[in-house]
Amino acid sequence: MPGTDELVFSGEMKEGVYRAIYGRRDIRSQFMPEPIPDEVLLRILRAAHHAPSVGFMQPWNFIVIEDAAARREVKESFEKAHAAAKQLFPEPKRAVYGSFKLEGILESPVNVCVTCDRSRFGPVVIGRTCQREMDLYSAVCAVQNLWLAARAEGVGVGWVSIVYPKDLKRILRLPSQVVPIAYLCLGYVTHFPEEPELQKAGWLPRLALKEVVFTERWGDRTGRICQALE
Amino acid sequence: MPGTDELVFSGEMKEGVYRAIYGRRDIRSQFMPEPIPDEVLLRILRAAHHAPSVGFMQPWNFIVIEDAAARREVKESFEKAHAAAKQLFPEPKRAVYGSFKLEGILESPVNVCVTCDRSRFGPVVIGRTCQREMDLYSAVCAVQNLWLAARAEGVGVGWVSIVYPKDLKRILRLPSQVVPIAYLCLGYVTHFPEEPELQKAGWLPRLALKEVVFTERWGDRTGRICQALE
Repeated sequence: MPGTDELVFSGEMKEGVYRAIYGRRDIRSQFMPEPIPDEVLLRILRAAHHAPSVGFMQPWNFIVIEDAAARREVKESFEKAHAAAKQLFPEPKRAVYGSFKLEGILESPVNVCVTCDRSRFGPVVIGRTCQREMDLYSAVCAVQNLWLAARAEGVGVGWVSIVYPKDLKRILRLPSQVVPIAYLCLGYVTHFPEEPELQKAGWLPRLALKEVVFTERWGDRTGRICQALE
Repeated sequence: MPGTDELVFSGEMKEGVYRAIYGRRDIRSQFMPEPIPDEVLLRILRAAHHAPSVGFMQPWNFIVIEDAAARREVKESFEKAHAAAKQLFPEPKRAVYGSFKLEGILESPVNVCVTCDRSRFGPVVIGRTCQREMDLYSAVCAVQNLWLAARAEGVGVGWVSIVYPKDLKRILRLPSQVVPIAYLCLGYVTHFPEEPELQKAGWLPRLALKEVVFTERWGDRTGRICQALE
């Protein structure tokens, strides 16, 4: 294989990467109360901190939330947002939506809010000059690193997006230039479901890879790599 | 360890995950022209497709670009954006900025544009009701999966964000509801640098983990996990 260096991956190491990617789940119902040892949580946070960032600005912070009172406030924000969201779905989807468990804020032993400080290291950032959202995307890469490292550690993660950002800013006392990116619930789990829960419930199907790959331009499936998918 | 299932990670598998996370680099200068075999590129794209997505909407597409003419157009957009960006940096940073090589659009054998179709599966999406940007973030998670799978395969990836989104929309003929998220250059490399290039060049320092971790709320470092970092 051309282009490798001393950091070559053994077959088993490569298998680990794919196992994390395919075995990762959004966890809502399977949390167990056992605490995550500090050294495990720190390995997960350090992995997140080594995400790519635009202009190396490392715009993220990780707020580790264990306090029950703060989490109850977040749960209240979820309840409001969830009730409002439910009204947006027409029946019969509304009843199905209402039946889903969509968060584990109080059952998981630890919550982590990943934030993005848009002013870090000053106003001009390499690579953020004509795509202003790049720092937000860097913080999302940190979330995905966290999620995959957690999976390798046997720790489940659930991303709660049904919560008002303005509530998170108030509860966590975020300064004005800091944006909440992801509110995450972390904990050991009874098991990692084989499929995403919304897939299993028949809410939406898994798209085939060939449906989402194009060659050269939007909608073009004439290229070699698309043919290889037929 | 509590909470694991049959998908337990061996020590070597876990090492693979961390090796991908810590050994991943944003590649601009180290590309080699050797083609990426189709089966390797498909493993990387399939890993991207298995990213988490809000409401399981899988909003991404992957446009594989090999055509030289299209890439020259993207390169021209980069040149314009790069020249405009340079003016934003005061001296002496401007000269340093100008000295960096920031893309490998033409040297890498394959470019991939990851997009987000904001209308996929209809207007109401579980989990995107009060955080409208969640579908964009899902597509970013796909980028990070792609990047880590590529690293495990010995393939380098560079994210070119100094390019005008409106140019990408025109060149790749994206429909109005489709947003370009990441323009990526892929290829085997002479080596993966030990450190990020901007870190090595002294542009910005790597933050210590303890600088970015808080407990309970913004700015609070009194909690146990922060103490463990001292």
